[in-house]
Amino acid sequence: MSLPPINFCSQCGTSVEQKIPQGEDRLRAVCPSCHTIHYQNPKIVAGCIPEWEGQILLCRRAIEPRVGFWTFPAGFMEMGESTEEAAARETLEEAKAEVRITALYAVYSLQYVDQVYTIYRGELLQREFGAGEESLEVQLVSLDDIPWDHLAFPVIHEALTRYVSDRHQESFGVHFGSIAPMTPKPV
Amino acid sequence: MSLPPINFCSQCGTSVEQKIPQGEDRLRAVCPSCHTIHYQNPKIVAGCIPEWEGQILLCRRAIEPRVGFWTFPAGFMEMGESTEEAAARETLEEAKAEVRITALYAVYSLQYVDQVYTIYRGELLQREFGAGEESLEVQLVSLDDIPWDHLAFPVIHEALTRYVSDRHQESFGVHFGSIAPMTPKPV
Repeated sequence: MSLPPINFCSQCGTSVEQKIPQGEDRLRAVCPSCHTIHYQNPKIVAGCIPEWEGQILLCRRAIEPRVGFWTFPAGFMEMGESTEEAAARETLEEAKAEVRITALYAVYSLQYVDQVYTIYRGELLQREFGAGEESLEVQLVSLDDIPWDHLAFPVIHEALTRYVSDRHQESFGVHFGSIAPMTPKPV
Repeated sequence: MSLPPINFCSQCGTSVEQKIPQGEDRLRAVCPSCHTIHYQNPKIVAGCIPEWEGQILLCRRAIEPRVGFWTFPAGFMEMGESTEEAAARETLEEAKAEVRITALYAVYSLQYVDQVYTIYRGELLQREFGAGEESLEVQLVSLDDIPWDHLAFPVIHEALTRYVSDRHQESFGVHFGSIAPMTPKPV
């Protein structure tokens, strides 16, 4: 699920070489013709936990991976936007809901897929939502009703675990760390 | 300073077309031959404010842009690492200093260069540092001695302004928001 290797220069179309550029310490795809160095870097996924009167908005995924499992709105950040704008846009696209971003909630690194999640809390502007194209259904759920066994990804599980704990303590931290890949349950 | 446009498919070398893929809402570089969609996304810069007995470690840049101006260690996150690991690695590379990352400090979006800074606080493991290849010099400075008029970038100025304020209040928040480009000073 990480990025595919670079075979050709995206600038001039020449076959690239793998070499360590001067002053660097690792292999890069370098164009022998136009000398462009092609860097690959982790991607940002911006997410939002949309809140409404003690409940949160969750989406059941209509797309792979993990069709049918639950998540809060989250997706790849686009060029030209801020992480907050990306989190609000994803909420609009996936849950047809408008939010005002109120706080940074977590920054999680997922080294196994080269992604960094930046997760915000957002306040629903009104009690209006619906399933966007990437969702099968969207529901406001109480914290007691989070479908723990049917969450889409470990990062969603981790963020919501912290969120429920913070809400019980009535104090929201800002969380960070690394998330390990999902391990199959023992049978 | 943003990413250059994609002209050729990095997978198969064919000239790409600009089109809106099915189910999406914006133009992407798409390969008409192997059908790869080439996404471009903002990049993460991981930074660290290294601390030692009330002082912080700053580096004077040896590389463009902004040669000769001051910054805390920061650089592009590499594949396979966490943002914390990237922040510690940059500290080692630019300031030859070992840190233990202690807290997330800020997440700033710089839409004008399609970068997101994730900035951490780090504790120097010992009072040892020096100028790495990308630094002209490295100094431990007291908060009263921060070279405000000679900082490299607006994001460095913003983070250190918050940092000094937080230290005076003896309470560290986690900050987030967007950073505007530097505007020339009126003459």
